[in-house]
Amino acid sequence: MKQHIHGGDIYRHQNVIDFSSNCNPLGTPPSVSEAIVKSAESIKHYPDVQCQELRCAIEAYEGIPSAQIICGNGAAELLFTLVLARKPKRALLPIPTFAEYGKALKSVSCMISYFRIEEKNDFIIGNEILNQINDELDILFLCNPNNPTGLLCPDDLLMEILKACHKHQVLFVLDECFIDFLDCPKAHTMKLFLNDFPQLFILKAFTKRYAMAGLRLGYGLSANVSLLDKMRQVTQPWNVSVPAQMAGAAALCEVEYVEAARRLIRQERPYMMQVLKRLGLYVYDSQANYVFFSGPKDLFKRCLEEGILIRDCSNYHGLSKGFFRVAVRTHQENGLLLKAFSIFLESPSCKWNSDLSCGK
Amino acid sequence: MKQHIHGGDIYRHQNVIDFSSNCNPLGTPPSVSEAIVKSAESIKHYPDVQCQELRCAIEAYEGIPSAQIICGNGAAELLFTLVLARKPKRALLPIPTFAEYGKALKSVSCMISYFRIEEKNDFIIGNEILNQINDELDILFLCNPNNPTGLLCPDDLLMEILKACHKHQVLFVLDECFIDFLDCPKAHTMKLFLNDFPQLFILKAFTKRYAMAGLRLGYGLSANVSLLDKMRQVTQPWNVSVPAQMAGAAALCEVEYVEAARRLIRQERPYMMQVLKRLGLYVYDSQANYVFFSGPKDLFKRCLEEGILIRDCSNYHGLSKGFFRVAVRTHQENGLLLKAFSIFLESPSCKWNSDLSCGK
Repeated sequence: MKQHIHGGDIYRHQNVIDFSSNCNPLGTPPSVSEAIVKSAESIKHYPDVQCQELRCAIEAYEGIPSAQIICGNGAAELLFTLVLARKPKRALLPIPTFAEYGKALKSVSCMISYFRIEEKNDFIIGNEILNQINDELDILFLCNPNNPTGLLCPDDLLMEILKACHKHQVLFVLDECFIDFLDCPKAHTMKLFLNDFPQLFILKAFTKRYAMAGLRLGYGLSANVSLLDKMRQVTQPWNVSVPAQMAGAAALCEVEYVEAARRLIRQERPYMMQVLKRLGLYVYDSQANYVFFSGPKDLFKRCLEEGILIRDCSNYHGLSKGFFRVAVRTHQENGLLLKAFSIFLESPSCKWNSDLSCGK
Repeated sequence: MKQHIHGGDIYRHQNVIDFSSNCNPLGTPPSVSEAIVKSAESIKHYPDVQCQELRCAIEAYEGIPSAQIICGNGAAELLFTLVLARKPKRALLPIPTFAEYGKALKSVSCMISYFRIEEKNDFIIGNEILNQINDELDILFLCNPNNPTGLLCPDDLLMEILKACHKHQVLFVLDECFIDFLDCPKAHTMKLFLNDFPQLFILKAFTKRYAMAGLRLGYGLSANVSLLDKMRQVTQPWNVSVPAQMAGAAALCEVEYVEAARRLIRQERPYMMQVLKRLGLYVYDSQANYVFFSGPKDLFKRCLEEGILIRDCSNYHGLSKGFFRVAVRTHQENGLLLKAFSIFLESPSCKWNSDLSCGK
């Protein structure tokens, strides 16, 4: 069995505080847990293959017609279903980014051109990507804000990318799974452009927004309803479980909970970034519910010794040893992380400490 | 959105007794419901990507090493993952059978040769299928007992098919999802041959055995561990939810519950078949937890008027109007079904009634 390449593996790392996955720091809302408990009565029935109630709830939440919504067993499933429905020959993939895009593309033997988002540009995506969008291309993935960096694609560039994809008939898969943790999601989402751009497919997850990663629920938005129908043809009809459908509908009522998480992140992220910088780490300008930075190569191991699981990002294509991601959690938990960091980084034996003069 | 082609759609047919899906008539065991309730505390974490505890529990239950076990979001997901991992060019598909085999094969543009299981042979699969297994073939699906007929492939023929697949390097996908409802599952399962035949992939489901269709959990067994690894490479790592993993492990302890279901079916199926025959329907010799028969074309509609949902099998490839499948349920529920049938079939206005002399 191949090694797991993602964060959140608390099964091989038990009794830790998990900063390696990026879910809502407030934990699962009680209404979601209650919906799961209630669903136990209904699991003798197959799930609704049309996810009718859930899609109506998403319609109300997103302001997108239910016909333009497709639900999946987590957003990750939809990536695989999408490429299987479209079978692209050539893909453009900005890196570093979420590993499942590349994995999904390889599942249909798609040729991938990588567009490197440069460290020297502080991992902010540049206009040069526009030169790579042409008639030869079939599909482009973009994660906004990006995982693992938390950085946004500049709004004007995002619009240019969308127009270029439209012009060259490139399927533009825009992953907005972390967008609801931004200070102002509305200012950055591209969902208003769905009707004008049938090439646009937006991916969203319940996983992160409502801390329900274990339940598996995500959705896609596209005005290209024949693409959505094609996706349904290449997957099983019962992919979204009864508990997920019921919990999803309950979660969408949790407006104040999401707002509270946003407030918490708005407060905690700058605090964490400030302390990390003070400790001599090179911290990138994340806008999301996690912080991305470079530091000593053995930081992951040292944190684990202190009972703290962080995301070692060295296995991201486009990154190397010494890049890390930590989730923004509650103030108390973040304090424990920062304390563990400072014990290690401020110790005389820390090699990184003596390297600080090297300019980063 | 395309029309649903399966049974069990209680969402478009509300307040009915559902005889159209084939789950355990005893309903979900309390321990499974309790595991779901308990799982609500843990869904903020991603599921275990290795399904480690669950696979260990399946190892103990099936007597197959956990390395030879792969879990899926229902058995149906595994069909799609399997064909995506293998990308077969030519498939052999005996029909009528479960529609998702063909749908999965089409998702990877596989050419399908259909082997018709003839009505004139009472839908018992014949030796002629052996002539179709040759070096040109990549994959063969077989459901045993078959869905929708409930009929077993004769044991000696099954062995011949396995040997022919081995000889010609054909992947043999044997769906044993309903095998645990047979009077004696051990006499018919091919799992003892896994180690000698790496071409054999056996599919099993929790769905039916424990009446947990809404939770989605199935598994595959194969000694070809590199095939299982390839399957993991073409799907998301988090496909099996936390509730499904926890409930699955709990379900496998329910030995007496499965035995009780088997006893109930052993008693009820012959009773149902006898009454159906007496009502003039042509009943096939199902060995499973459902009964397959032919009857008046409007039977589905008439039953629905009485609040009873049966499976109209006319959309099965290889069948036409007038074939039906009903689940074996509790004695009281079966009584309601048979009463509804008799009201319709014994009424003077029933055309079928007057056709009885035609010999069926």
